This record gives sequence, C-alpha cells and structure tokens, in this order.
Amino acid sequence: MGQRCGYSIDRVCALWLDTTQFLVSSSSVARGHTPRLPKVLSTVQGSEQLAWKYLFSDARQSQAMEGNPVHRVSAGDAWSSSMHPDIESERHSQSFNVEELTNILDGGAQNTALRRKVESIIHSEPELSLKDNYFMTQNERYEAAIKKKFHILMLAQRLGWSEGSSELQYASRSVSGDLGFAIHHIFQKTIRSLGSEEQIAKWDPLCSKFQILGTYAQTELGHGTYLQGLETEATYDAATQEFVVHSPTMTAIKWWPGDLGRSATHALVQAQLICSGARQGMHAFIVPIRSLDDHSPLPGTTIGDIGPKMDFEHTDNGFLKLDHVRIPRENMLNRFAQVLPDGTYVKLGVPKSNYLSMVVVRVDILLGEVLPLLQKACTIAVRYAVIRRQSRLRPSDPEAKVLDYQTQQQKLFPPLAMAYAFHFVANNLLEFFHHSYSFILDGDFALLPELHALSAGLKAMLSDFCTQGVEQCRRACGGHGYSKLSGLPSLLTRVTASCTYEGENTVLYLQTARFLIKSYLNTQKSPGSASKGSLPQSVAYLTAPDLARCPAQTAADFLQPELYTTAWAHVAVRLIKDSVHHLQTLRQAGADEHDAWNQTTVIHVQATKAHLYYVTVKIFTEALEKLESQPAIHQVLKRLSDLYALHGILTNAGDFLHDGFLSGAQIDMARKAYLDLLPFIRKDAILLTDAFDFTDQCLNSALGCYDGHAYERLFQWAQKSPTNTEGNPAYEKYIRPLLQGRRARL
Amino acid sequence: MGQRCGYSIDRVCALWLDTTQFLVSSSSVARGHTPRLPKVLSTVQGSEQLAWKYLFSDARQSQAMEGNPVHRVSAGDAWSSSMHPDIESERHSQSFNVEELTNILDGGAQNTALRRKVESIIHSEPELSLKDNYFMTQNERYEAAIKKKFHILMLAQRLGWSEGSSELQYASRSVSGDLGFAIHHIFQKTIRSLGSEEQIAKWDPLCSKFQILGTYAQTELGHGTYLQGLETEATYDAATQEFVVHSPTMTAIKWWPGDLGRSATHALVQAQLICSGARQGMHAFIVPIRSLDDHSPLPGTTIGDIGPKMDFEHTDNGFLKLDHVRIPRENMLNRFAQVLPDGTYVKLGVPKSNYLSMVVVRVDILLGEVLPLLQKACTIAVRYAVIRRQSRLRPSDPEAKVLDYQTQQQKLFPPLAMAYAFHFVANNLLEFFHHSYSFILDGDFALLPELHALSAGLKAMLSDFCTQGVEQCRRACGGHGYSKLSGLPSLLTRVTASCTYEGENTVLYLQTARFLIKSYLNTQKSPGSASKGSLPQSVAYLTAPDLARCPAQTAADFLQPELYTTAWAHVAVRLIKDSVHHLQTLRQAGADEHDAWNQTTVIHVQATKAHLYYVTVKIFTEALEKLESQPAIHQVLKRLSDLYALHGILTNAGDFLHDGFLSGAQIDMARKAYLDLLPFIRKDAILLTDAFDFTDQCLNSALGCYDGHAYERLFQWAQKSPTNTEGNPAYEKYIRPLLQGRRARL
Repeated sequence: MGQRCGYSIDRVCALWLDTTQFLVSSSSVARGHTPRLPKVLSTVQGSEQLAWKYLFSDARQSQAMEGNPVHRVSAGDAWSSSMHPDIESERHSQSFNVEELTNILDGGAQNTALRRKVESIIHSEPELSLKDNYFMTQNERYEAAIKKKFHILMLAQRLGWSEGSSELQYASRSVSGDLGFAIHHIFQKTIRSLGSEEQIAKWDPLCSKFQILGTYAQTELGHGTYLQGLETEATYDAATQEFVVHSPTMTAIKWWPGDLGRSATHALVQAQLICSGARQGMHAFIVPIRSLDDHSPLPGTTIGDIGPKMDFEHTDNGFLKLDHVRIPRENMLNRFAQVLPDGTYVKLGVPKSNYLSMVVVRVDILLGEVLPLLQKACTIAVRYAVIRRQSRLRPSDPEAKVLDYQTQQQKLFPPLAMAYAFHFVANNLLEFFHHSYSFILDGDFALLPELHALSAGLKAMLSDFCTQGVEQCRRACGGHGYSKLSGLPSLLTRVTASCTYEGENTVLYLQTARFLIKSYLNTQKSPGSASKGSLPQSVAYLTAPDLARCPAQTAADFLQPELYTTAWAHVAVRLIKDSVHHLQTLRQAGADEHDAWNQTTVIHVQATKAHLYYVTVKIFTEALEKLESQPAIHQVLKRLSDLYALHGILTNAGDFLHDGFLSGAQIDMARKAYLDLLPFIRKDAILLTDAFDFTDQCLNSALGCYDGHAYERLFQWAQKSPTNTEGNPAYEKYIRPLLQGRRARL
Repeated sequence: MGQRCGYSIDRVCALWLDTTQFLVSSSSVARGHTPRLPKVLSTVQGSEQLAWKYLFSDARQSQAMEGNPVHRVSAGDAWSSSMHPDIESERHSQSFNVEELTNILDGGAQNTALRRKVESIIHSEPELSLKDNYFMTQNERYEAAIKKKFHILMLAQRLGWSEGSSELQYASRSVSGDLGFAIHHIFQKTIRSLGSEEQIAKWDPLCSKFQILGTYAQTELGHGTYLQGLETEATYDAATQEFVVHSPTMTAIKWWPGDLGRSATHALVQAQLICSGARQGMHAFIVPIRSLDDHSPLPGTTIGDIGPKMDFEHTDNGFLKLDHVRIPRENMLNRFAQVLPDGTYVKLGVPKSNYLSMVVVRVDILLGEVLPLLQKACTIAVRYAVIRRQSRLRPSDPEAKVLDYQTQQQKLFPPLAMAYAFHFVANNLLEFFHHSYSFILDGDFALLPELHALSAGLKAMLSDFCTQGVEQCRRACGGHGYSKLSGLPSLLTRVTASCTYEGENTVLYLQTARFLIKSYLNTQKSPGSASKGSLPQSVAYLTAPDLARCPAQTAADFLQPELYTTAWAHVAVRLIKDSVHHLQTLRQAGADEHDAWNQTTVIHVQATKAHLYYVTVKIFTEALEKLESQPAIHQVLKRLSDLYALHGILTNAGDFLHDGFLSGAQIDMARKAYLDLLPFIRKDAILLTDAFDFTDQCLNSALGCYDGHAYERLFQWAQKSPTNTEGNPAYEKYIRPLLQGRRARL
C-alpha cells in the first residue's frame, strides 16, 4: 500500500547479479522507502543548520507564491510562481486532497517531508543541476555524473547522511539517478555476499572509503542471458598460487559493465574456474585493472568504453579483454568454494541468495528507475495537454485544450492509470519479498519459486508497459515531444533499456511460464498424491470456482472490481490450461520435450501475460479496498483501477470472447464503461499528476513545468543550445561558396 | 508492383505542405523509381570514366570474393569478403533467386544496376561516409550534412546528374538522406506552385543556382495541425506598398522549419494577410532573413536553432521571430490571390493542388524515408540473430542461433512481412496517384477524396507499424541493440518522427474515418437518390456480399488469400457500420454534431484501422497474383502475405470473434497456421533481408554487416569512440582525489 517496512532492500542481502545485466540503474530509490526512519530523521535534524542555509532563499521565494494553489511544501521546487491560466484553472476545484495522495505514494507524510527537505538541499546546489543535460556530449554527461556523485558524497559527509540512508536515496531521485559509480556499489555488495569474512574485512573498507573503485564484469560480447556460456577463464597455477584470468576469444571480451569504461580500478570478473585440469563452472575473481597511482590500464588488460548508446550516457559501460592476467589465489571470492594451494577444489556450499538477489534487483529497478520514468512522462504530457490548444470542438468556440479531445484522453489516461496501478503492484511485490525474506532467514525457502516467478514476470510486464506508456505520452505531445527539451525523448530512451537489462523480458516471461505450468500440473494430481501441495497464493485462482459466462448485463456492471477481476482470472486460467494442453499434445505426438517447449513458447508467453494482468488488477483493487477510509481519494483511484482493468480487457478482447465468457454485446458494454470513465478522469488529470510531486528541477522538462509556461521555456532553453552558441563553421566552408557561386571553381 | 512509371513524383506537382509538417525527409527516393530511364543511363555512361576510377579498387577486391555466394554486383558494397560461417550457411541453399527479388523491389534489373552504380560512386567518396555519425555532436552532424550536400552537388555537376534525376535520388538513398538543404527544395517548389510567372522567373533560378537558400516556415511554437490557428500576420501598408510581417505573440514564433536554424537566407512565411483592415486568411510571403553578404540575421528577425532533438540532428530545424519586418508587395506569392497597390484584395482562384501536394509528400516519405528504415532494421536484426548464439535447445546441442527460437521468429518475422507488404502497398498508392493525376490534369477531381483518404490513412498506418517494427527488431538484438553502433537506435529515433510529421497520425486516421462514414452513408441512400454514386474502389467492399460466418475448417484454410481477405473485409465493414451507428445514436439522443463526433472518435479510429488493414492485405495479395510466373519468389512472398494477414487477425482477434464471424476454434486454427509458417520463413530469412540489397556503408551497422562479423566490428568501432579518444578529465578532478582520500580535505 505504499507504506514501507523499516529497512532498505539495498541491504537486505548483497547482490549476485542477474545473468543479462548490462546496465544498472544508479538510483535505487524505492519511492517512500525509508530505512530506519527515526534514526534517519534525527540525523537530518543534526544537520538542520546546514540544510536550512540552503533552504533560506526558497523560504523567501515561497512568500511570493501565496494565494496560488500550490501543493508543494517547498516553493523552490517550481521554477516560477506565475501560473499559466490554463493550468491554474485545472487546479481550482479539487475533488480530492492532492497532498494526501502524495503522502500515500510516499508511504506517509513524514516521508514526504523528508523527501522534500532533501530535494530542496539538492536543488540548491548548482553542481547538481540537470539543466544542461540535453546539450551535453556523452563525455560531458559522464563527467557531470562523476561530479554529481562526488558532490553528493561531500554533502553526505557534511550532513551525516549514512550509506544507504533515505536521504541518499532521495538525493539520487532528485537528480534522476544521474550519478557515477553505481556499479561500484554492486561490486562491494557482491564481495559481501560471496566473499569470506577475511575477504570482506580486506575489501569492504577500501570500497566504502573509495580507495578502490569497482565494477562487476559478467556479460561478454557474445554472451548474456546464458550464464554457463560465459567464456572467460581463470586457470589455477599451483606453482605460483595464482589464477591466470584470460579472454580466450573475441566473444569472451567482457562488454557492458558500468563504471568499467573509464572509472574502475578493480573488476569483479565472473569466469570459468579451471583447476587441476577440471572445469568447475562460474566463480567470481577480483582483478585489479587500473593503476592506483595514475589510473593507467594494468599489463595484460585492454580496457575502454563501449561507445555511444541510446541513453545512459552518464554511465561508462566498458569492455575488458584479459590476456593471461595473474592474480593471487586469495582473489577468488571463497565463501562458497575455494581452491587449496595445491589446486584441490573444495565446495563449501551453494550460495542461497542467487534467486533472492535477482528478485531484489528487479523490485529495486521497478520502484527506483522504471516507474518514475512513466510517472514523469505522464506529468509532462498531461500538463502540456492543457496548455496546448488546437482546433475547435465547435466552430464558435476558442481553440480547445487538446486534453478535451477523446483521442487524447485515450492516449494519456491508460498510461496514467498504469502509473498508479504499478505503484501499488511494485510495493506489493516489495512487501511479499520482505514477507518471504523473514521465512528465508529461518531457512525456509518454500516461497522462493513464487517470489522468483512473480518478480521476473512483473519486471517484464511493467517494463514493457512503462515503455509503451512513455512513448504514447511522448507522441501525444506532437512535434514538441520530439524535442529533447521536452524531457520525453530521454525518458523513452532510458525506460526502453529496462526491457533488456536485468533479464530480457521474453526470457523472464518464460521463466514465469514454467512456474505457471508446474503449478497447473500440480492441480491436476490426484488428491491423495504425496507431492500435491497447496498452491502458492498468486496462482491459487487456478483452482477457484469459475463461471462459464460473465454475468454483466449493463455497462455499469463493468465497474465492479469483483466482476473484472474474475474475468481476468477466467481468461488467465483458460490460457494456462491451453498452453499446457499444447505442450502435452506435442509431446504425445512424439516431439521431445525441448522441441515441444520451443514450439509452444509463443503460446506460453501469451498465457503468462494474461496471468500477470490478472495479478496486477487484483493487487490494485485490493490496495484500494484499504483506502476506503479516504473516500475522495478512493473514488479517484477506483476510476483509474476500473480504467486499467477495462483497457486490458478491450485490448485483449479476443481472449475474453474466445470461449464465450464475454459476448460481443458485453464487450460493447465494457467499451461504453471505459469511454464513459474518460471525462471523469479528465477533471482530475492535472491533480493526479501533481500528486506524483516531481520538482521542476527533477522533471527537467520545458513542456511539463508546474506553472504551465511551456512555450516561454522552450524558447528560452533553445537559445542556450550549442547549435546557437558555438558558431557555424559550415557557413565559411560550404554555404558561402555556394551562395557566392564559387562552387563552379572548386 | 514495384515497376514505376517514367516520371518523378517530385516534379509531378509542386508542394504546398501539410499543416503539421515540422521535419521533411531530405531523401525522396522512391525505391526503384526511375525518371526517364534511357536518358539517365546515357548520362551515367558519359561519366563512366570517373565512376570506374572510383570502382577500380573495388574491382580488385571483388576478385578475392570469388566462391562466396554474394548476390551483389559491386563487391565494394560489403565491408569484407570473409564470411562468418553462421551466416554463410544461411546462404548456401537458396529456395529462390535473391537477385530476381531485388530486381522486383527495384522495379527492374536496369534500376538495380543503376542504383548499384551510383552507390559505388558515392561509397568511394570519403566525404560521403556515414561511419562517424554515431560519434558526432549535433553541430558536427549538421556540418557533415551540409558538407555531403555540397559534395553531392559537385559530383552531380561533374557527372551530369540533373536536378531530380534518379542518380541524385539513389545518391541520397546511399547516404540515408543525411543531407542538408532539404527544405530549400520545398521552398523552391512552393514558389513554382503558388508564385506567378514573374515570381517564378525571378526566384527559381536563384534557387537552382543556390544564390539564395530557402526554408518553408509554417508551423509555429503554439500551432501545428490547425492551419487557421496560425498567428503570424502580414499587414499591408499602402503608403509604402509593403507588407509588415510580424509575430504578435510568443506562440506565433515560427518553430521547426528545417534549414532555418543555421542555413537559410530566405523564408517562405505562411501568415494571415491583413489588408484594408480585413483578414484574408493564410498566404505565403518571401521574407529575406539573413544577409547575403555575411549571413547575419537581418534587422527585425530573431533566428536560431531549436536545439537538440530525438534525431534528425543533421537538420537545422529553427525558429523565427519577426518584429515588424517590411517586405515589398511583390513578395507575396500571387498566383491565386494578390493585393493591389491601393490595398484591394483580389482572389484569382483556389489552388487546386493543396490536397494533391499532401498526397505526394506522404507517398514520398513512405517510400523514401519510412519503409527503408524498417527494411534496414529487419536486415540488421535477422543477420545478427543467426550470429548470436544463446542457450541450448537441447542439453547436448551447441548453443543455438537465436533465430531458431520460436519467440525470436515471432518478434522478427511480422516486421519482415510488413517490410515486404508495405513495399507493395506504397507502390500501389503511388500508381493510384499517377492514375488519379492523369484525370486531374483533365480537370476531373473525382478521385481526389479517395486519394486523400487513402494516403492519409496509409501514411498513419505504415508509420505506426514501421515504428513498432523497428523497435521490435531493436529489442530482439538484446543489449547490443541498445548500442548506437548497431544502427538500430537511430533507425528508431528517426522512424518514430514519421508518426508526427506530415500529419499527426490520429488526425490522419480521423480524416480517413470521415471518408469512410461518408462512403457508408452513401450506400444507405435509396437506390433512386440523385446523389447516390458508385463507391470509390477502396471502399467498394462496403456493398459486397458478406458472409455471416467464416467457412474455414482447418488451419490450412487460413492460407487462402481469398479467405483472409474476406475476413478482413467483414470486420472492417462491421466496425464502420458500428461507428456510424454510435454517431447516429448520440445525435438522436440530442448531442450536437461536434460533441457526438468527439465522443465517438476512439471508435472511428478503431474502424479506420481495420479498413486500412483490409486494404493492405488486399493490395499485397493482388500484387502477388502478378508474380505467379516466378513461382519460387511467389511462394516465399506468399508466406509473408499469409503471415501478415494472420498476424493481424490474431492481434485483433476480438474484432473477428465479436459477432461470431470467427469461432474460438477457428482462431486456434489461424494461430496454428501462423505458427506453422514461422519455420518456413526461418529458412529464407537471411535471403529475404539480403534482397533489400542495402550496402554495408548505407546500413552503417556493426551488428548487421553482410559478412556477419558483428563482434569484431563492435569491438573495432568502439575503439574509435570519443569516450576512448578524448581523455578523461573526470579522473584528475574527481576520481583521483577520491581514490587518494583527499575528499575529506575538500
């Protein structure tokens, strides 16, 4: 429900990274997620003096803003107090209390207050401004990200913000995670997870004090998803008690690790361990790669940056080619396995946290990286849609706000509904993680398969939908949505990466599919079967009583959460049964299990998506039940929940009509219910995006500012573009010769 | 069918641009579209000597390539002749003749030969290389595009390539349209279209000789789609016989015109004409904006570049603020209206070519800009999918080519099918344009409404689908698809613009919708009604006999073009009827026509999309009928046609199930037919992308090279990135102080 438990997922367990990781969000800010709140607050109070120094100018500015319906506590968070009348009018009559909704999203008013306090501090530091991002080259973005990280570390030192504190998380959120050394923290956590006590004692303080800078090097040029396919080798040489770490082929070159390209001094290299002539599988090795004196690459290493990307320009994703690099025996992380001096391989256990670590990372990126990008896109596009006027609804009217067009509402409100739905979904997943973790601490791993299936599937689904939603918001802004100054292009190029990193989405859907098939087959076992257990909660609906026909008789019936949740359950069960049926039919026809699997994967993905939609509808509706004590907020969010469920039904109508569960007439009712919701959401749309409470500085959009002055800002910002400030060498070289007719002589 | 008639659409009529234009593709290369072929060929022969000078080194290189199954005529078009075995094996057994398919796409073997000849010349010029594009800043991209344009003009002069010739079109294609001064040509054409004979005589030669550089300034900061909403004013002052051109507000600033930001000396400004105190609507005025001596902005103008965009960095989209700028009376284009010296406004006719011009531009961008971007993305992604190996289909197998996974085929083959379908669709539209144009020349405008509706709708549909397809191809390449060096990110950021420029897609769908509604209402008139005419060809199916149920009984039945075309017709008719019904119901319930329209637009868009899908399925199947004399090619393309039609049915299954036209069991048959097609297309996939015949230079992708050496090239190209060549100032400033523990003292 947004309320978060009192400790940080960052520290719940150290990370062993997902196989396909190539980028890691530098921000791990779960919205409103506040580790050990009381301690944290007292820390801030201790540094209050400094914070208020920064806030002083804002405080004065806020006096100028009196009388405006500004919901924000710190007035310095908006770039002006002079409101465009077209956005001001949207805020005049409020059907719900925006501040209360913000508090729900933050997980409590205390968190909102702390977040705003940190934002004010961050936004007062000119070094931490994002404003010039759109004008920077990749090299400049990288340097700026390192600079920001450096300044935030200084700030944390001065203000007493501890490692992993909420303040640091909110600080990262304030600069949109635009910080260097993200993977350094992964490097450190992996050592904590896979290293022995001695190794942790040696390396952890070096990391904390930044006396070394680490990267996590797993993915190779030719290898991602399939961990066993990694080619890098670490061969033990008993004569010298060293490992020889080597890239035997072109495709074995480490590729994509963040912080590797231009920053790291040490790499945690995942490599095939070879000792006493035998291959022992993947193990982790600490390999020094750059001199601590002058940062030059060490002998045997070829290191560099992998070059321009679609986004994440602030991160120096790099490559690393190892040519028989020797490291001491102690540099293999040996909590779970070690190589004795004579080359004997000793297994000390199986790292139990692998699954768990992937889960943590996935929940983390959903809340800290993926979802905020969609929420920002919605904020920008909805705000601009009440400023942009185009054509007339009636010949006698003035030009209409584009948000008054049904087609514009159809573009913007499904993503807006998702931006809320996924907040509750991701937080629910986080709660489930905490719940499972308490069992795991007691050695009970029973919930792990479900946790893994849910986190994999929801990561895939949410990143897919958030990417679609951001692009829809961007296009809904017409030509200006194509300008980087709108902020929308970079939201898109950033969010789309989440469909690939931390597990390619198709691979993840299929992991969930295997869990669903297994769960379904479990329901088919005879009641007395020893192996038949109770179904995990998220798939309990597989055995729930099912209707053959939906009972809806009017459009209004489709606004009953019970009705649409049941409809989604029905479709998901049917498709899971169907996918199992196809698999079994192929097997019975003689296909081997691998062929049969491959030939049914498209069908499995379809079934898995229906299951996940069901899960999200259910979580959203259940979350709203808990808000019934706040009826105004409950009402506005219920409309979003209805819209979310119905939008899914209408865009997948075939799945509901297939067996006659819904009739064509009922689909028409659902469509009517859906279309009738749009004008209601229209009235609250600006307030719903205000409630996300992004500061103008964090949003960094000329189109989406709180005050609505989109055109003035586009014009002002364009003046500062290097295209206007750096001169035009093409004139002397080509344009003047052309204009003056000299080309004939060239 | 790919065969193109013998004259250039560029010159069929001059252009008056669409209201929402903000970017114009600099390339207008309709594939295989060859004006006056014999003359053109002889011109090239005249310059053979020069061309062969360039080709000499390639000719030597080609000897090294003997024995490789290379389809290309000029060996210099591939970056190496050493084939990766995983791609070589794909080309060994060929179920059809790739060269013949290329010829079909080019509209004849002669065109293929000419295109390759031009490509060889262009690729021999180092100044025209695209290789460093991914490393350039926006300013560098602009300068490079001006440089390329300059060099191509020089080349054209030396080789005798005339304005608008196929050689120049192929040259533009070879450099992916990465050229400056695209809007200069629009400026020139608009003068030819709207100017009097005297005005043309004065301005046209100045344009042709590049003694002036023009831009076309229509879109304003606050105004796009709605032409009447433009605010820029041109007020006639009879005392001086001048117009005073002025931007009265912030939102009136001209915004987005290409070539305006840093190049143009003159702007063709669309402005509200005010004379003798009366507003006379939009007219076009030639406004000098930069000095012909030193290129400085002229008094009263504020000019600049609008700054960073998602792509089109080579184009200097600009802004223009006019402060009471005076221009002579003669600078209003006055073919259709003029202002007499005393201020009397005289209307001389209505420019008939408005609609027609929009049609031309839309067909032009589909063939010259949008479709090639999808074809390139398919080429890159399919090639990489046979190089990338990941996981094992069976535990005992080596890692499998990712193209062997059903889910990968499901990602790549629908876009591939579209890349072929849309080739035939766009060429069909071009033929229809030529057909209509011959009537229009005789003063018969009867076909214009249909032509407008088809071109608007198909522009919207094809740009939507091509954008989706490119992104699907990009994601199918995993992490490397996120690297700009793959070429895929820039294909996406470029193609997505086409959903907005030349008519925002939703606006276009609704224009087609109005035509469909009108056509449908026409069928409802009583047979004797005077106004009841015969239906335009593309909507003739509205009155065709219709089945209530699809007769398919097996999966194989769904491979009958007649069956799936009829199914699409059925659904389109039902949805159009449904949308009219909703409109009429609202009207009868008392809504005024404007409200009723706005409240049904989502439904109209849905119906229009079904209509357009029907049209494209029909065109593709009819085009294939003409290829029956080439059975091998017919067979491979028919599979794509089947896949295209079935993919549409499956993703819109609800529309087919809604009234029981298809049953759930029949949808399952269609799905089986669809899935069974995938392995057949798999066998031909590489050849189908080879047939697009993109040179490596034009494709400019590290992942998608003809030889399959993706990893080597990624590695080589990354070395040249400025992230590796420009040093790392962040080290001295931040990293060293951190590592050496100095931060405490800072």
